[in-house]
Amino acid sequence: MLYHLLPNLEDVHIIFNLFNYITVRSAGAMATGLILTLLLGRPVIEWLKRKDIVDVPRSKLAETPPGDRKANMGGVLIVGVVTLATLLWADLANPYAVTGLVVMLWMGGLGFLDDYLKVVRGSPRGLVQAWKWAGSLLLALALGLYLLNWAPPAPAGPTTTNLPLFDEWLLVFTPWAYLVWVTVVINGSTHAMNMTDGLDGLAPGLAAIAMATFGVFAYVIGRVDTSAYLGLLYLPGAGELAVFAAAVTGTVLGFLWFNAQPARVIMGDTGSLALGGALGGIAVLLKAELLLLAVGGVFAAEAASVIIQTRYFKYTKRRHGEGRRVFRCAPIHHHFQMLGWRNEQIVVRFWILGILCAMVGFATLKLR
Amino acid sequence: MLYHLLPNLEDVHIIFNLFNYITVRSAGAMATGLILTLLLGRPVIEWLKRKDIVDVPRSKLAETPPGDRKANMGGVLIVGVVTLATLLWADLANPYAVTGLVVMLWMGGLGFLDDYLKVVRGSPRGLVQAWKWAGSLLLALALGLYLLNWAPPAPAGPTTTNLPLFDEWLLVFTPWAYLVWVTVVINGSTHAMNMTDGLDGLAPGLAAIAMATFGVFAYVIGRVDTSAYLGLLYLPGAGELAVFAAAVTGTVLGFLWFNAQPARVIMGDTGSLALGGALGGIAVLLKAELLLLAVGGVFAAEAASVIIQTRYFKYTKRRHGEGRRVFRCAPIHHHFQMLGWRNEQIVVRFWILGILCAMVGFATLKLR
Repeated sequence: MLYHLLPNLEDVHIIFNLFNYITVRSAGAMATGLILTLLLGRPVIEWLKRKDIVDVPRSKLAETPPGDRKANMGGVLIVGVVTLATLLWADLANPYAVTGLVVMLWMGGLGFLDDYLKVVRGSPRGLVQAWKWAGSLLLALALGLYLLNWAPPAPAGPTTTNLPLFDEWLLVFTPWAYLVWVTVVINGSTHAMNMTDGLDGLAPGLAAIAMATFGVFAYVIGRVDTSAYLGLLYLPGAGELAVFAAAVTGTVLGFLWFNAQPARVIMGDTGSLALGGALGGIAVLLKAELLLLAVGGVFAAEAASVIIQTRYFKYTKRRHGEGRRVFRCAPIHHHFQMLGWRNEQIVVRFWILGILCAMVGFATLKLR
Repeated sequence: MLYHLLPNLEDVHIIFNLFNYITVRSAGAMATGLILTLLLGRPVIEWLKRKDIVDVPRSKLAETPPGDRKANMGGVLIVGVVTLATLLWADLANPYAVTGLVVMLWMGGLGFLDDYLKVVRGSPRGLVQAWKWAGSLLLALALGLYLLNWAPPAPAGPTTTNLPLFDEWLLVFTPWAYLVWVTVVINGSTHAMNMTDGLDGLAPGLAAIAMATFGVFAYVIGRVDTSAYLGLLYLPGAGELAVFAAAVTGTVLGFLWFNAQPARVIMGDTGSLALGGALGGIAVLLKAELLLLAVGGVFAAEAASVIIQTRYFKYTKRRHGEGRRVFRCAPIHHHFQMLGWRNEQIVVRFWILGILCAMVGFATLKLR
């Protein structure tokens, strides 16, 4: 918004020229997200608790630190502040920033519905799950169709995506395959974030790391010179997603202040679906879906651990009559709890692995 | 070192050209530091414990998580790995990188002597303190004299430093004042890091944030275009400090794996003096000492809390006959412990403040 308001003031002072720079606006968005969340955190938490919107731990493993109940649905704070910071700092005529924001709002809305039905109305889980699947499927299809038909000018065509590690290669889909692809990426990212959000502070920290990394990718992909240099598809205008990613980064760091063990609030599905959706959406928009697999390696491992565990259990049950387990418990952070790691230790170590994954993501880029 | 070895192989494969890039070598140094520390952590900790080099908590507040004793002098791992990663990836003909490394080694050696006398020999604290002061004073004087006389070609003269926030202004010292300045910066940084290192994981996390930030500054200051753009003194060759800073960043992140609560090892004075010295040394070399005050805001607050507390106590004791306190306990992280914050909460929140301070540091740069 500032981008639109301030050019008219250009004569007043040279400083307003600064708002043309993506880097400056990204820094502004990150700072706005961080500071606003720090300021609003306490009143929002108190308001949620007054409304009796509190966490009902899914399992004993998730409630280790005893004491106060945690407020739930803290995701409303995240979604609200990210929206505000993005509206303030992004170029709202840019389709990338707006699409990223819409994807986050849609998935956040879906999470809100989910939380509302479960926490406030006490509806059964089954209904909620069905809604969630339908809603995220719908979004993925809408996004896929939108990209197929509108498509911000992608030089190599809308269904082409970057293939990290392999020089001079790109991945090209048929339109139908592309729709499936977008669905898989969006749903995979959303569910992985949802699985990861099971220990105080874990998901926000990892989301901040991944989002900051994708902010850099967006900046690089939106420039002719740097995208060519790193062998990534050049997408004119995609740099604006850096502003959005920075807004998310700052906001989740602010949220972490209140979500760090012992958490006073959890993000709920409102938060985890919004963040997972935003991350998947950015990856799809940047045609960097496979980079997400590297950068979001910890999220992928969390999701994979659940799939492996349930599949193997069912398979062994059919085959041997009794279900066996690969991990002591899934998602995998619970496995380490059972190995005797303390919660805060798992969280910090997973963050370090997240940073390592981000570095792997950078390392797969094809330097020219 | 790779920088020197590999140009000869240039014909073999184009990939070796990559080693000319500071960004690539910084990434390599960071990855080397992180992975090597993760691999060496466990054997080093076990070796230290076998030698009975374990932590004797200074106060009850520092030993809250009960259980196993922590290995001490983990700083030897940090110093060793940083040295290795820097030797491997930096241009060893570059005075900046080498000076940064020498400062870290000197201060690390001083910390080692300190730890050795205290932990292994059981010497009284007083002797140790005197050695520490003398040693760090000597280093600061040597560094100051070196910069005054050799000085990597600093266009504005060796005693000029950047003044953040104030456009078109620089700070210029007389040679004597410059020596005092360098002494204050190096000792201030070292002692602040030493004070901060009082809760599991606190100092390594903050050091990683500050080092990564200064790595970016080094890169920016070492380039004609970016330094001019951000209104910083251009220092040809200073970019090589980014490689050193990246090595430190990766290494302390790896150390954090083992130092996160409940810590299995602490860095000891070997680590905190080495890291504080390295940070102060980089700031002096980059002529960005005042930026360190912003970026290292949390370190500064920790040091300031101790000074304020002891001064005020002495003042009130003289004046009113009884000593009064400003904080419930100093350094300030203990103050928050007494307010009922949990250790891991203080640590994560101080990290978030560290990120905020880094952002403030960037914001003070004068954009052209």
